[in-house]
Amino acid sequence: MADVWDCYHRDLTTVEEQILTNIGSDVPLVKEISTFILQGGGKRIRPLLLVLSARLCGCQGHEMHALASFVEYIHTATLLHDDVVDDAEFRRGKEAAHRLWGNQASILVGDYLYAKAVRSIVDFRIHELNSVIAESVRRMTEGEVMQISLNRYQRVLSQTEYVQMIERKTGALIAAACQMGAILGDADASDQEALFHFGLRLGTAYQIADDMLDYVGHGDRLGKTLGTDLRQGKITLPLLHLLHHIDATRRGEVQALLEQSYLGQGDIERIVVLMNEYGSVEYSMAIACEYVDKAKSALGGFGESTAKQALCIAADYMTARDH
Amino acid sequence: MADVWDCYHRDLTTVEEQILTNIGSDVPLVKEISTFILQGGGKRIRPLLLVLSARLCGCQGHEMHALASFVEYIHTATLLHDDVVDDAEFRRGKEAAHRLWGNQASILVGDYLYAKAVRSIVDFRIHELNSVIAESVRRMTEGEVMQISLNRYQRVLSQTEYVQMIERKTGALIAAACQMGAILGDADASDQEALFHFGLRLGTAYQIADDMLDYVGHGDRLGKTLGTDLRQGKITLPLLHLLHHIDATRRGEVQALLEQSYLGQGDIERIVVLMNEYGSVEYSMAIACEYVDKAKSALGGFGESTAKQALCIAADYMTARDH
Repeated sequence: MADVWDCYHRDLTTVEEQILTNIGSDVPLVKEISTFILQGGGKRIRPLLLVLSARLCGCQGHEMHALASFVEYIHTATLLHDDVVDDAEFRRGKEAAHRLWGNQASILVGDYLYAKAVRSIVDFRIHELNSVIAESVRRMTEGEVMQISLNRYQRVLSQTEYVQMIERKTGALIAAACQMGAILGDADASDQEALFHFGLRLGTAYQIADDMLDYVGHGDRLGKTLGTDLRQGKITLPLLHLLHHIDATRRGEVQALLEQSYLGQGDIERIVVLMNEYGSVEYSMAIACEYVDKAKSALGGFGESTAKQALCIAADYMTARDH
Repeated sequence: MADVWDCYHRDLTTVEEQILTNIGSDVPLVKEISTFILQGGGKRIRPLLLVLSARLCGCQGHEMHALASFVEYIHTATLLHDDVVDDAEFRRGKEAAHRLWGNQASILVGDYLYAKAVRSIVDFRIHELNSVIAESVRRMTEGEVMQISLNRYQRVLSQTEYVQMIERKTGALIAAACQMGAILGDADASDQEALFHFGLRLGTAYQIADDMLDYVGHGDRLGKTLGTDLRQGKITLPLLHLLHHIDATRRGEVQALLEQSYLGQGDIERIVVLMNEYGSVEYSMAIACEYVDKAKSALGGFGESTAKQALCIAADYMTARDH
């Protein structure tokens, strides 16, 4: 992956400049919070994928950098809202914005970043861009609401329902980023669709891999505390796998643990032990890798190129992140 | 005003149907919360103004009703977020959504309604509509952030700064509703601009009048508790007027009251007594009426018509609401 960052260094530097210069508000608090969160060390996965997709489709223009910055604004808006929703303490190892400026400011600056991105994308005057981004934001917000409705463990979700939820929550925006790159490269409908599906599957793999970090990651390295998702009652694939495969007595034990108002360290460790016993984490990793393979196969119609290679490396990176 | 509701009854009934049928999500919680808040007895000022502006410009089509419903979605999204931001107990006399479903759901369903509206407006395939709505949402969210940044009484705002804030917070969306009606009616740039300014001034008048309700309204009739804005440290025109005109000793007294962590009933009554002594509420009403007059004068270029009359009545209604 280091080679990809290296090879597209100039594009990514330009995107970085655009991210910081396009905020476009004379309200100091908007700039302050936006700059804080946008400089918080995000990996810029969505901008990278947009740029690579645009390059794959032969785009030579400079609009891709600005467009990539607006996609990052939308992603950043969801982070601001998610951290309020989850009452998160940290984001990427730093104190979360809502703990520094309050929930009010985080909600409203999140709204601003959404609106600024939509407003700026309209200025491209390309109907397809508006259509793709607006539909993806609709799907994404729908996925977020699905997540909180389903997080109550009243029944064990099927894996299909879980995938539908994360396809919306995480896949939709990544799919849109890839398709928008294709649109800028004047790709035909079938190439656009291929890149959309590439992004959708990649996003799904990314979310499954991210879910696993909760059970196998190291809090200090990832800026995420082990067991956070469990404590918040968030559904993840390893947990679903466990609940579907465990024998009835022990399922009762796990569900009793989950239903407590607060999960202690010992409760979390017990669940992780059971997950290891039932191979739930390995299973999830296998599913994530399957989605990566499906993503790569969506690119079958494109000839070999540096951009295609880079997209495939980026796809592999989804399941090979630091955990 | 009853005559206006009556005369445009069919348009408004169609808008009402569209509001309830266009939600467009298969996620039950999205539908449940959206329907709850959309059926919460809103006055549909923005849809009415959009329809009247469209009629004024000769629009005969049916797109106006759907478009009006999407503008109401955006307004509703801001209500969901505002109630979380303000930790409001009630909305229009009913328990606020976030107290029934939680802050998480209110934030995310608000995001959904924004996204759904933008997504649906894109489908009209009229660039000007996208441009006008996206810019107005950007301005509006900017106004919301301005409000919380300015709400700290560290210095007394000028009236100009206050008006700049409410023009964005409340004026921008109403101005967009009027201009979008004009766009559907194929109005030329100068008629569009006239309706934009009509809406902007109307929105400003509306917000000033709404601010006054905090000091003269009756909690039970308005679903708003007397003194709420004061308790939340919200800047309103009567308070600004008082702080600008009161003598230095008493200004110290008022500022000491405002700086308390909790304002008791007695504190609020004391401030209201001072406002009456300095004519701050009357002054605010006069300014609101000035904005109504400026709004009406923006329509000078349009010939007489039922729609124009109705817009003027709606303008007067802004300062004559139930208080």
